[in-house]
Amino acid sequence: MVNCEWLKVPSASLDDDARAAAEARQGMLTKPPGALGRLESIAIQLAAMQGKEKPSLERLRIVVFAADHGIAAEGVSAFPQAVTAEMVRNFANGGAAISVLARELNAELAVINLGTVVDPGPLPGVSDQKLGASTANFAKQAAMSEEQLARAMNIGRQSAERAVTKGMDLFIGGEMGIGNTSAATALACMLTDVSVESLTGPGTGLDAEGVSHKVKVLQAALDLHRDKIDSPVTALRYFGGFEIAALTGAFIACAQMGVPVLVDGFIATAAALVATKQCPGTASWLLYSHASAEPGHKHIVEALNAQPLIDMGMRLGEGSGAAFTVPLLRLACALHNDMATFAEAGVSGKE
Amino acid sequence: MVNCEWLKVPSASLDDDARAAAEARQGMLTKPPGALGRLESIAIQLAAMQGKEKPSLERLRIVVFAADHGIAAEGVSAFPQAVTAEMVRNFANGGAAISVLARELNAELAVINLGTVVDPGPLPGVSDQKLGASTANFAKQAAMSEEQLARAMNIGRQSAERAVTKGMDLFIGGEMGIGNTSAATALACMLTDVSVESLTGPGTGLDAEGVSHKVKVLQAALDLHRDKIDSPVTALRYFGGFEIAALTGAFIACAQMGVPVLVDGFIATAAALVATKQCPGTASWLLYSHASAEPGHKHIVEALNAQPLIDMGMRLGEGSGAAFTVPLLRLACALHNDMATFAEAGVSGKE
Repeated sequence: MVNCEWLKVPSASLDDDARAAAEARQGMLTKPPGALGRLESIAIQLAAMQGKEKPSLERLRIVVFAADHGIAAEGVSAFPQAVTAEMVRNFANGGAAISVLARELNAELAVINLGTVVDPGPLPGVSDQKLGASTANFAKQAAMSEEQLARAMNIGRQSAERAVTKGMDLFIGGEMGIGNTSAATALACMLTDVSVESLTGPGTGLDAEGVSHKVKVLQAALDLHRDKIDSPVTALRYFGGFEIAALTGAFIACAQMGVPVLVDGFIATAAALVATKQCPGTASWLLYSHASAEPGHKHIVEALNAQPLIDMGMRLGEGSGAAFTVPLLRLACALHNDMATFAEAGVSGKE
Repeated sequence: MVNCEWLKVPSASLDDDARAAAEARQGMLTKPPGALGRLESIAIQLAAMQGKEKPSLERLRIVVFAADHGIAAEGVSAFPQAVTAEMVRNFANGGAAISVLARELNAELAVINLGTVVDPGPLPGVSDQKLGASTANFAKQAAMSEEQLARAMNIGRQSAERAVTKGMDLFIGGEMGIGNTSAATALACMLTDVSVESLTGPGTGLDAEGVSHKVKVLQAALDLHRDKIDSPVTALRYFGGFEIAALTGAFIACAQMGVPVLVDGFIATAAALVATKQCPGTASWLLYSHASAEPGHKHIVEALNAQPLIDMGMRLGEGSGAAFTVPLLRLACALHNDMATFAEAGVSGKE
């Protein structure tokens, strides 16, 4: 068991009064009851999280954690490992999907480099917090030392604290790391009853032969370490990545401090699985944005009893699916806050 | 057959060169091929519609057509007929869902009153173009005269023309009319092989007994008129509403003039069905926004071979589902237009 005392802090409570007030308000708005479907439950859920009848999502912080993976040495990715650092540069220069989305959403974007094989050099907006050139190859040994794990989770926690300091209404955690679908898949296998075959997918674009090789590598690694796994964070240490550990720490800390989290796709959902298995109270603070096209995502989502809002066939990571979903949450809030009630508008009710 | 000569004008062609350029661009952006899923095909489709490699959806026109239905006399709605005019007032005063969404999207909102039982009086932003107090009760006779049908479709066409004059990038047609799920259901039954039972739903909120009564009313009306229906627009005349005819005319005219249309839920999709059955070229200009919670919607969507973008369990009408989806189309364009290419960003390709 890794020593991370702060994980024992309980999650913040939701506000039942604000929830009840928001529920009552939905019933008075000029529409047939329930006609806004999930938009109604989103607004009510956010009201309970933010402790006010009329929630808002103006201020938004996106943190992308980047790191390389030792498991890449086993040939489990379609792209070369240099791409992790190259994409960190692309984030900083504003050319990546998440950079474009952050601009469009008027969101704050921060990038944290937790360890890339290639050093991208100093970059504006990128915080260098390297814990190593990459994780170790978990086909052979634990991906992280206890110290690396604790530091990575703490970096995630600090990101969440910064969101609180800055008065953010919502936190999105993204990731970049060649090889990280392998890490997320192994983690999810360890923490659910789903088979390696069901959870393993093409990631950035493996062909069928590549996926079959990935399954073999992951199965062997699971068999090698299984007996040593005595907790969710120990699974994280053996199979995870620096960026997945940072996401896990950020999600748990957001829940402790009462900041709503919008969870991205496959990798982020695996981190959410670790977070909620380790600290079950975290679950109340997580909203799931999109169904990833990575085939294993649906199994992790089921294990979490989560219902992603949209399915656009995305499988990019970076937090892009979560960011893409933000306008829907914002519009759900606008409708909840700004529609007239039957009384205000002088509209007749149901007969 | 109704005399609407302008319906014979062919639909505009899509731009194959712009489509090819957009497809090539998607292949060069810094992401694994296909990783943005449907966002890629949306951007490519809009490029072909707008005739430019980089499409945009800044300028947006929403027109809500309101009208009452004679079929309401048969007790097929959970809300009283006075609500149609009351909601027209709510649109004008900015309190309805579509009013809120139009403000949030910075969209132009126009309301056209084609005939309400109660006169809402003169209202800012509402154009009074009444064709009668309501349609006739189609349980007993055709809902519209030939002249009413022609005028209603022409009002829709004029709305589309105004969108062109104003340089709009996208058209959304909404509707309001107590009783209009009955009209849309009868129309869809007439134009597809789906049974009345499968297509009929609760609308604004009928209970099971109410739905069962609605099925009987619609089945009897279909049996009464079936032999007289010799074309899609004749079905529209017998079973439709003024607002459904206006939507149909608007969709056909948008396609003729090359304006992309974002189709809303149950009622608008029924209008799209009439439009594409009457003028098949219209289909290329219609994008489907959301899957309605009205149970028959999925059957109409299937008949159209359409794939709505999202499913949020909405069933409000007014164009609200389409408006709600606009930010997703805008973000798909922003990603397509503003992401860096592999060459620009110096990112390595697939191994």
